[in-house]
Amino acid sequence: MHGHIRWIIALIALGAQLTPQAFAQHAHHDLRVDADRIERRIQALAAFGRNPDGGNSRVAFSEADVQGRGYIISLMREAGLSVRIDAAGNIIGRREGSDPNLPSIAFGSHIDAVPHGGNYDGDVGVIGAIECAQVLHENDVVTRHPLKVIVFSDEEGGLVGSRAMVGELRPEALDVISHSGKTIRDGIRFIGGEPDRLDEAQRGPGEMAAFIELHIEQGGILESKALDIGVVEGIVGINWWDITIEGFANHAGTTPMLGRRDALIAAAQLILAVNKTATSVPGRQVGTVGRIRAEPGAPNVIPGRVVMSLEIRDLSAEKIQALYANIEREAEGIAAETGTSISFAPIDVTAVPALTDPRLRQIIKGAADALGLSSQLMPSGAGHDAQNMARIAPTGMIFVPSKDGISHSPQEYTSPGDMANGANVLLHTILQIDSGALE
Amino acid sequence: MHGHIRWIIALIALGAQLTPQAFAQHAHHDLRVDADRIERRIQALAAFGRNPDGGNSRVAFSEADVQGRGYIISLMREAGLSVRIDAAGNIIGRREGSDPNLPSIAFGSHIDAVPHGGNYDGDVGVIGAIECAQVLHENDVVTRHPLKVIVFSDEEGGLVGSRAMVGELRPEALDVISHSGKTIRDGIRFIGGEPDRLDEAQRGPGEMAAFIELHIEQGGILESKALDIGVVEGIVGINWWDITIEGFANHAGTTPMLGRRDALIAAAQLILAVNKTATSVPGRQVGTVGRIRAEPGAPNVIPGRVVMSLEIRDLSAEKIQALYANIEREAEGIAAETGTSISFAPIDVTAVPALTDPRLRQIIKGAADALGLSSQLMPSGAGHDAQNMARIAPTGMIFVPSKDGISHSPQEYTSPGDMANGANVLLHTILQIDSGALE
Repeated sequence: MHGHIRWIIALIALGAQLTPQAFAQHAHHDLRVDADRIERRIQALAAFGRNPDGGNSRVAFSEADVQGRGYIISLMREAGLSVRIDAAGNIIGRREGSDPNLPSIAFGSHIDAVPHGGNYDGDVGVIGAIECAQVLHENDVVTRHPLKVIVFSDEEGGLVGSRAMVGELRPEALDVISHSGKTIRDGIRFIGGEPDRLDEAQRGPGEMAAFIELHIEQGGILESKALDIGVVEGIVGINWWDITIEGFANHAGTTPMLGRRDALIAAAQLILAVNKTATSVPGRQVGTVGRIRAEPGAPNVIPGRVVMSLEIRDLSAEKIQALYANIEREAEGIAAETGTSISFAPIDVTAVPALTDPRLRQIIKGAADALGLSSQLMPSGAGHDAQNMARIAPTGMIFVPSKDGISHSPQEYTSPGDMANGANVLLHTILQIDSGALE
Repeated sequence: MHGHIRWIIALIALGAQLTPQAFAQHAHHDLRVDADRIERRIQALAAFGRNPDGGNSRVAFSEADVQGRGYIISLMREAGLSVRIDAAGNIIGRREGSDPNLPSIAFGSHIDAVPHGGNYDGDVGVIGAIECAQVLHENDVVTRHPLKVIVFSDEEGGLVGSRAMVGELRPEALDVISHSGKTIRDGIRFIGGEPDRLDEAQRGPGEMAAFIELHIEQGGILESKALDIGVVEGIVGINWWDITIEGFANHAGTTPMLGRRDALIAAAQLILAVNKTATSVPGRQVGTVGRIRAEPGAPNVIPGRVVMSLEIRDLSAEKIQALYANIEREAEGIAAETGTSISFAPIDVTAVPALTDPRLRQIIKGAADALGLSSQLMPSGAGHDAQNMARIAPTGMIFVPSKDGISHSPQEYTSPGDMANGANVLLHTILQIDSGALE
């Protein structure tokens, strides 16, 4: 009934010669998502893959993943979406628009988790996206563009579903063993995809008017600044090297301190050099040594060899290169001083930064402003399906606060109010795009 | 025949009223070991447990250990020794003396190796000891004291045989799994011992006049100074702690550099502090971090926890304590600065320094001098069965050079000349003790 009144208003507005954009802004500006329903659904989804400690291990391609996806599909149908699973196992819920010639507006995220993860990473974006569709459905709002809610498969295993959608999932990647224990090939089949027909999942530039992802921040910037919404400038490039330091293993009792070529002493100096390099210039770049192995690894043997990881992330590929060059230079000095040799092997240096569409940043910020929400531009330090989608569509990302900046942990938490704020910004961003803001 | 001439000379000397000491020195001062025979036997022993890379993995209680022990027993018998295996699996080759009231002079080492070790650690002392007995046998020299050549069981697994001999092998130590895969209990049984009757292997103070161990240096001091013989001042105390650093694991992409509590950054600072502390005072003390584990240990996660070993060795227990106290103090500062907590758990802090007998140091040095060999006082940075034997008998140790200071490695090497030098010093040390030098 409420919906019918809206249509009457719309017809009156059209009659008054308003532009379609102004009409849409005017007609739907008071639409709001249901915060309680979002929270209930987040809790219901959490049941699939729940750990005894309260966290969640709903890893991609597990039984829990299949059950969670079944629940999501039921919600999509309740929201009036027609559901299909593409060849890569992505769930796509579609809603027709009024103009069959327009490309779709896509939005979504993922519901697979890391082992011993939480209940918000990915889930907030999926439940929020379905909520937007449901609000439009309940209010009988028909957009001009078709809408697509996308739940990507195996995000945590390397953005598998979105890589397939942009044609970047190579056949050899299908042999990788996923967290479920299955190969990605078998996993895709397990959730209803067709790994031998991945090209059918591929979408080209122009097929979507935009892609928008709502996600928890996974960091502590919004919370520490008491901000409601992060307007993502881009997803950082993530470059990973393995560093090998060769010294000389020897008896820790009989080798005098000054006669040693201790690979772990060199490693310690280099770990501190990475930290110094990453903090010596302004900006949000990060440099991390997260993994280290000393060989032979006995308390009574001087380490002869250390292998450790180096990860550098930034929105600028040039900055990543400059930081890396600096660290390589520091390593040369450390090697000379400690009598070791230090080499860097690129493990994954192909993840280039992906910038969001500047117009979408403006639209997202405008939607937050109109809703009375504070916001700030910020990079995403984590990888997201949006970084792949940016190759084929104007892409935007909306962040909501993470308590204590924690993610990939049972302690992950975002409040119902913050989730609803994010979903409202998503809803009004979609409506703005639909009203022609990108045209 | 040669032996008979010696006895005739001895009787003449006695008739000339020489003291027994002077007699002994005079009578045997030209006895020498057979360098070729030592080298041949070292090579023959190397066949048992040989690795394809030329090194040796004759770990205690393995088939190769049993075979090597069989070869050693055959050599002992060839040297005129009567052989028995005690309850702890130690091989004891005995030669009677002329005075049944005198305690025995004991000497020996071990033939078990570390996995992927070499052919000299332990072996040189055993083959050298048997060579001494054989030279006496071939020259029909009867000492006043009984002689005992001891081959200790499972030295590399924690000085097992010598611990049993001094009554320090506790029942719970028998449950430890040795390098062979067997428990020490089953291993002792496997080599002919009786683990349920270990008290029968125990020897008390006064039962041995002295214990002398010939061993490779396992360090590079003798080689670098071009010295022939190391006169060991003592075996260092070895104290081992595990250090646990608790920070906070978080996403390496979304956690700004300045918001981190990176346990590996604190660990790197502490590794360098250990090195600085151990090198900041004069002396031969060593401090080593040989093992490190960062958790969760992924390139894209800030390490929340690091566990690493700390080993400090020195001849002075007080110095070990002072260095440890200094490192603990440094750790407090690092913890405060990095937002981590750092704790130290003592793993094995019971291995106190064991000093050699000052008279035996003099005797060993005198024997080297008389043989025209250069020598120097030095600590043993490695543990040896001698450190246990020092609890029940005046103990001495003789070191010979290790090429490049390498040990516990296939590259371990000591030249035939150096092995013979060490065995000659051992031989004349035994003769000096027998002539009453300790009385």
